[in-house]
Amino acid sequence: MRIDGRKNNQIRPVKIIRDYTKYAEGSVFIEVGDTKVLCNASIEDKVPPFLKGKGEGWITCEYNMLPRSTEVRKVRDISRLKIDGRTMEIQRLIGRALRSVVDLKLIGEKTIWVDCDVIQADGGTRTTAINGAFIAIVDAINKIHKERPFKVYPIRNFLTAVSVGIFEGEKILDLCYKEDCKANVDMNVVMTEDGEFVEIQGTGEENPFSRKDLDELLHLAEKGSKQMINIQKDILKMDCLWIGTGK
Amino acid sequence: MRIDGRKNNQIRPVKIIRDYTKYAEGSVFIEVGDTKVLCNASIEDKVPPFLKGKGEGWITCEYNMLPRSTEVRKVRDISRLKIDGRTMEIQRLIGRALRSVVDLKLIGEKTIWVDCDVIQADGGTRTTAINGAFIAIVDAINKIHKERPFKVYPIRNFLTAVSVGIFEGEKILDLCYKEDCKANVDMNVVMTEDGEFVEIQGTGEENPFSRKDLDELLHLAEKGSKQMINIQKDILKMDCLWIGTGK
Amino acid sequence: MRIDGRKNNQIRPVKIIRDYTKYAEGSVFIEVGDTKVLCNASIEDKVPPFLKGKGEGWITCEYNMLPRSTEVRKVRDISRLKIDGRTMEIQRLIGRALRSVVDLKLIGEKTIWVDCDVIQADGGTRTTAINGAFIAIVDAINKIHKERPFKVYPIRNFLTAVSVGIFEGEKILDLCYKEDCKANVDMNVVMTEDGEFVEIQGTGEENPFSRKDLDELLHLAEKGSKQMINIQKDILKMDCLWIGTGK
Amino acid sequence: MRIDGRKNNQIRPVKIIRDYTKYAEGSVFIEVGDTKVLCNASIEDKVPPFLKGKGEGWITCEYNMLPRSTEVRKVRDISRLKIDGRTMEIQRLIGRALRSVVDLKLIGEKTIWVDCDVIQADGGTRTTAINGAFIAIVDAINKIHKERPFKVYPIRNFLTAVSVGIFEGEKILDLCYKEDCKANVDMNVVMTEDGEFVEIQGTGEENPFSRKDLDELLHLAEKGSKQMINIQKDILKMDCLWIGTGK
Amino acid sequence: MRIDGRKNNQIRPVKIIRDYTKYAEGSVFIEVGDTKVLCNASIEDKVPPFLKGKGEGWITCEYNMLPRSTEVRKVRDISRLKIDGRTMEIQRLIGRALRSVVDLKLIGEKTIWVDCDVIQADGGTRTTAINGAFIAIVDAINKIHKERPFKVYPIRNFLTAVSVGIFEGEKILDLCYKEDCKANVDMNVVMTEDGEFVEIQGTGEENPFSRKDLDELLHLAEKGSKQMINIQKDILKMDCLWIGTGK
Amino acid sequence: MRIDGRKNNQIRPVKIIRDYTKYAEGSVFIEVGDTKVLCNASIEDKVPPFLKGKGEGWITCEYNMLPRSTEVRKVRDISRLKIDGRTMEIQRLIGRALRSVVDLKLIGEKTIWVDCDVIQADGGTRTTAINGAFIAIVDAINKIHKERPFKVYPIRNFLTAVSVGIFEGEKILDLCYKEDCKANVDMNVVMTEDGEFVEIQGTGEENPFSRKDLDELLHLAEKGSKQMINIQKDILKMDCLWIGTGK
Repeated sequence: MRIDGRKNNQIRPVKIIRDYTKYAEGSVFIEVGDTKVLCNASIEDKVPPFLKGKGEGWITCEYNMLPRSTEVRKVRDISRLKIDGRTMEIQRLIGRALRSVVDLKLIGEKTIWVDCDVIQADGGTRTTAINGAFIAIVDAINKIHKERPFKVYPIRNFLTAVSVGIFEGEKILDLCYKEDCKANVDMNVVMTEDGEFVEIQGTGEENPFSRKDLDELLHLAEKGSKQMINIQKDILKMDCLWIGTGK
Repeated sequence: MRIDGRKNNQIRPVKIIRDYTKYAEGSVFIEVGDTKVLCNASIEDKVPPFLKGKGEGWITCEYNMLPRSTEVRKVRDISRLKIDGRTMEIQRLIGRALRSVVDLKLIGEKTIWVDCDVIQADGGTRTTAINGAFIAIVDAINKIHKERPFKVYPIRNFLTAVSVGIFEGEKILDLCYKEDCKANVDMNVVMTEDGEFVEIQGTGEENPFSRKDLDELLHLAEKGSKQMINIQKDILKMDCLWIGTGK
Repeated sequence: MRIDGRKNNQIRPVKIIRDYTKYAEGSVFIEVGDTKVLCNASIEDKVPPFLKGKGEGWITCEYNMLPRSTEVRKVRDISRLKIDGRTMEIQRLIGRALRSVVDLKLIGEKTIWVDCDVIQADGGTRTTAINGAFIAIVDAINKIHKERPFKVYPIRNFLTAVSVGIFEGEKILDLCYKEDCKANVDMNVVMTEDGEFVEIQGTGEENPFSRKDLDELLHLAEKGSKQMINIQKDILKMDCLWIGTGK
Repeated sequence: MRIDGRKNNQIRPVKIIRDYTKYAEGSVFIEVGDTKVLCNASIEDKVPPFLKGKGEGWITCEYNMLPRSTEVRKVRDISRLKIDGRTMEIQRLIGRALRSVVDLKLIGEKTIWVDCDVIQADGGTRTTAINGAFIAIVDAINKIHKERPFKVYPIRNFLTAVSVGIFEGEKILDLCYKEDCKANVDMNVVMTEDGEFVEIQGTGEENPFSRKDLDELLHLAEKGSKQMINIQKDILKMDCLWIGTGK
Repeated sequence: MRIDGRKNNQIRPVKIIRDYTKYAEGSVFIEVGDTKVLCNASIEDKVPPFLKGKGEGWITCEYNMLPRSTEVRKVRDISRLKIDGRTMEIQRLIGRALRSVVDLKLIGEKTIWVDCDVIQADGGTRTTAINGAFIAIVDAINKIHKERPFKVYPIRNFLTAVSVGIFEGEKILDLCYKEDCKANVDMNVVMTEDGEFVEIQGTGEENPFSRKDLDELLHLAEKGSKQMINIQKDILKMDCLWIGTGK
Repeated sequence: MRIDGRKNNQIRPVKIIRDYTKYAEGSVFIEVGDTKVLCNASIEDKVPPFLKGKGEGWITCEYNMLPRSTEVRKVRDISRLKIDGRTMEIQRLIGRALRSVVDLKLIGEKTIWVDCDVIQADGGTRTTAINGAFIAIVDAINKIHKERPFKVYPIRNFLTAVSVGIFEGEKILDLCYKEDCKANVDMNVVMTEDGEFVEIQGTGEENPFSRKDLDELLHLAEKGSKQMINIQKDILKMDCLWIGTGK
C-alpha cells in the first residue's frame, strides 16, 4: 500500500471546476490529490510573427508556481529577472501537448494562451496542468464554435497526461510529492484517447532503467490515461461530443 | 441605486476562507463581490540586510495579478522583465499598512512575506488584499504564538481598508470595476478599529475635489471600515481575542 | 522653533531658475531649502499605444535620484536592473498630478515627458519635483502656444504640492530630511489654486492618526499651497496669464 | 536511401578531437556529420548552495548556439536578456544525463561545468553535445585522478545519446536537420553501455505515435548507442579502462 | 575662424564650481562651453572582490547622460535594461585615466566612486568629465588627508583630457558638438602635467589619418592640456600643493 | 629574447581557415599564436532604424569570449544579464574599424553582422578578431559581388590591427597574454595598407608614456601591419584583387 493508501495503479481523487473565473474563455480549476492548478485559456486575435499571414493559429502555454504553492516559499521569477529552467521545460511540454490534438489550420489566425498557475503543489503539477488545460481549451474552442461554428471542429482527440515511476522497487501511477522526490525513475506520459503517445519523458537520473521497466511503466500509464479520460468525459458531458468527429 | 443594486454606503458581499492552502503559515482566500485574492503569509527566519542584528522583524508584501484575472489578458511581469508601476505602488501600500498594526520589535528576527495574488479582479483589489492579508497575518502570528507564546502579543489593532469615490455625483463605498473606471475621485482608506487612519490615498486626477467632498468620503470610509471589522471578527472568532490587549 | 529655525507653518526658501538647460522645451532648476531638482519637460510628437488615433495628448514623468544626491551613495537602477519601488511610486504621483491640470484633449497627439532628476535631496523631493515640473510644463506649453496658438489654452489651473507631518507632537509644514525621517505622520498634498485637492497621500505607518490630526494637517497644507502659488506667479510673471482662462 | 545516402540504422560519420583548447580540464571538439560542438569541462572547487557542506559534487551544463551556427543568424540571448526555452530544455537534459553516470559523492565538493557551444548545427546538437561532453568529463576526471587518485573511480558507466525518428514513414537513426524538421516523431534516447535508459524524450507533436512505433524506435536507438560506444572506446583508448570498475 | 569664433588652438571657456552638492566627498560642477557635467566623488570603505585583503584601494567611474542633456531626449538605460555601449566605453576610459595618477596602494582599502552625470552635452563630455572628476578626486582625497594625513600623499600628478580633431581640413582643439559630428578624425588625449600620455584614443572611422596628421594633433593636444592645467591650479589654489610631491 | 622566443618586432605565427562553417556568408577561423577566434560575417537584408530609407548599408560587430577560452572560466553574460564593459569596448572598436574600409553607400540597405567568438584567448583577441573579420567581410562581399556585381567594388583598402606595448623596458609587437598582463603600456593600432591610421588606442594606466615612446611604438605597429597585410594577401589570393581599385 502507498503512502496515501492508494493502490499502485490508482490515480488520486480528481476534482474539476469549469468556468472558475469570469473573464477567461476557458477557465478550469483542477485538483488532483493536493495538487491544485488554475488553467485559464485566453483567445487573442493575432499570431506570433513566424505565423503571420499563413492563416493558421497557435497555442502557447505559460506555467507558473505561486510563491507559497510549495513547502518552502519560492522566490518569484521577476525578483530574479529569470524564468526558472524547470518552468521553461514544463511550459514547453504543455504547449506541445495541447497543440498535438488541435488542428491549428482550422482555428484561423488566433492564439490561445494557456496560463497554468499552480496554487498548491504536491507532485504531478505538469500532468495536472495538461489535464486541466485540455478542458479549458475545449471550453474556449466551444465558445468560438457556438458563436461562429467551425466548418470542421478543430479538436482531434482527447488528451491526458499521467506520471509513472519506480518507488522502492514498485511501479506506481500518479506520484505524489513524497513519492516523486524519492522515485528512482520519473516518467511523464501524454496520450490520446486512441492510446497513442504524444510525448514521453522518462528520466532515471540516479538509476537508469531497463527496457522491461519501461514496458511496465508505459502499461501503467495507459491505465492511468484511461481513468483520466473517463473523468474528462464526465465533466465535459455534452460539450465533448464534437471531439475527433472531424465535423 | 448602484450598478449592482447596492446602496451607496454598502460594501459588497465578503467571503473569506482560512487555511486555503496547506503550506503557508497563514493562507486566506478572500472574495469581495467578484474580486478574488489569495493572501498567503509565510514566515522566514531572517530579516533584510538593513535590519540584521537589531532583533526586530519585518513584514513585506508582493502583489501580483494572474494574467487572466482581468478582462484583457495581462502580460506577465517576467515577460517584460519589469514590474508594473501600479503593482509596485500597491505592494508598497499593503506592506506599510500591515506593518502599522504589528509591533515588529516583538516578533524577533523574522520576516513575514505576504503574497497577494489576484485570481479575479473587479475593482478594489488593493483593499481586498489588505483585508485578506490581515487575517493571514493573524493566523501566521497565532501559529507562532501557539508554539512559543510571545511575552507580549504583537498585533496592536484590527486593520481594514476600503475604497470610496465619487461616481456620477454620488459618494459611494467599495467601488466595483465599472464604477471605479468612471469615478471622478478614487480614494483608498486604511484604518484601525479605533477609527484612526493608517493611510489615506485619494486622487482626483481628472477632477480635483473639495474639502467638503473629502469629509464626506472619509465619513463613508469610516462606515465601511466598521462593516469590515465586524466581518473580520466573525471569521476569526476566538483567534482575535489577543489583538490589541498588549498581553 | 524648528531644526532650521522655521515656524511650523513656514515653507523653506525657494529658488527657481527657468531655461536652465538649452535643449528642453521647459527646463527648471528648483531649490527648496537644500533639496535641488532639475525638471526638464520634453515634447515628443507621438503618444503611447493606448492613445493612438484618439487625438489626445499625454504627460508622463520619470523621477530619478542621482547617486550622490543622498547622504549615502545610492546604487543606480541600471546596476540592479530594477527601478526602485519608491521611485515608481513617486513618478506615478507626479504624472497624475501634472495631468490633472492640463486638458490633454487640447494639446493634440503629443507626449510631454517630464524628467525630474534629484541633484541633492533634503526631504520633500516629490513635492519639489511637482512644483518645479509645473513651471517646466507651463514653459513647454507656452513654447508651442507662441508658435501655433491653441484655440483654447490647455492649462486649467495652478498646481502645487506640499508636505505636512507630525514631528514631536507638532504639526509642521514642508519637512526637511531630519524632520521627515522622524515624523510620525507624513502627508503629501497636491492642490490647485482653487484650494481643491488633486492628490492626498498620508501615511502613519508607525503611528495611525486621528480625524482631528488630519484636519489640522490639511489646514496647514492649504497655507503652504498658497505660499507656493505666490512664488510660482512671481517667477512666471506674464507667462501665467492664460492659465485657467479657458481662452 | 536517405537524403545523405545513409541507411536507416546508420549514424553519421563521427570525428572527435580531445584537448581541443588548452585551458579546460576536458576539451572535446565533436563533429557528427555537419553538426559541430565544442564541449569544455571545467572543474571548480565549490558547489552550489544547496550542496554546501554535504561533501558531494555537482555537474551542470550550459548549452549555447553561436549566432551563425544556423542557416539564419540567431540573435544572442544577451541581446534579448532571456535564455531561449529550447536552450534551457537542452542544457537541463545534458546535465541530468551526465550526472547519471558519475557518482557525485565520490568527487568531493567540486562542480564540473560543462559548456557545450554549438559551432555548426545540422540536427542532433543535443545528442552530439552529450556524446562529446561525456568524453570531456572523462578527461576532466582523469586529470584529477592522475594527480590525486580517487579511492573509487567515480564514472560508473559509458553514456551515449542518439536521436531516432519517423521520416516519411521510415524509422531512422541520427536525423540530420533536413530530416529532423520534417520528422513526424522526434525522440532522443540517452543510454548506458548496459543498454539501460537514462532519459527518453519522445514527442509526436504533429503525429502521435503508437506503442509499436515506440518499440521499433527504441530498438533503433539501441543499435545507434552501440555504434557510438565503440567510437568512444576507440577515441578514449586506455583512458576509459577505469569506467564502471568501481575501483 | 571657428563656428563659435575660437582659434584652432583655443579651448572653450571653463567654469568650475567646487563643493557643488553637500554630501559627496568631492563635488564639482564643470562647464566647458555649453557642456555641463556634475562630477561627484564618493568614498566607500570597501573594495571590489578582486582586491579584498590586498590593502589597496580602487577608483571606478559611472558616466551617465541625463535624458534631456541632448538635442533629442535620450531614453534612460533602465527603460531599455541595458547600458549604452558608448557609455560603457566612456566610463571605462575615465576610470583608467583617474587611476593612472593616484597611487592606489597608498589609499588603503577604500573605493572612490566617481559619478559623472552630464547635465548638458555640447561635445567633449568625456574630456570634460575627466577634467572635473580630477578636481573632485583631489577634494575627496584632501578630505581624508585633512582628517588623517597619508604618510605619502597619493596623487602623483595633474591629469587633463582634451579632444582634438580634423574639421574641414583644419586641426582644431576642444571640439564643440557641431564640429565633432562632422569631424574627419576624432581624438581624445589624456595627459599628465609632465606631458606624458595616459591614454590616446583616436579614430578616423570615415577618414583614416596619416602619421603627420597624428603628430600635429598631438601637438595641439599638448597645448590644450597646458591651458587646462593652469585652470586646474587656479581653481584648486593651495589644495593642489601636495600633488606629485611624494610627501 | 621574448617569453616565446620571438624577436621584439615579430608577430606570432598566423593560421587562417576560410569557409570554416557552412552557413555564414564569410567564415574565418584565425589563430595568432594560441589566440583562436571564429569570425563569421552574416548578411541581412535590412538596416538599423537610423539608416532606414537612406539607401546605405551598415556593419556591426558582436564580440564574445566562450566561457573556457580563458584560464579561469568566465561566467556567460546572460547569467549576469549584462554585457561586460570590456566586451562592449572591443566590439565597438571592431565595428568602427571594419566600417572604415567599406563604402557603406555602395552596399545598399544591408547589414553585415560580424560575430567574433573567441575560442581560446592568449592576448591580442581584439586585433586577431579584426584581422580575421576583415577576411570574413571580403568573403561575404565577394559572395554578393559574384552573384550581382557592384558597380563600384565597396572595399576601399586592406585593414590590419596589431598590438604593441612596453614590457620590461622593451618595445614589443603582438603581445601574448603573459606579456600583456605585465605591460606598462598597451596599444592597439588599426591601419590600412597605405599606412594610415584607422584607430589608435593606447593606455598607460599604470605608467604614462612619453612622446618618444609613442613614436617608437607606432613605428613597430607599422612593421607589424605590413607583416599582417602580406599574410592577408597570401590567404585571399585572387579574391583581393578588387580591393581599393574603385571599380
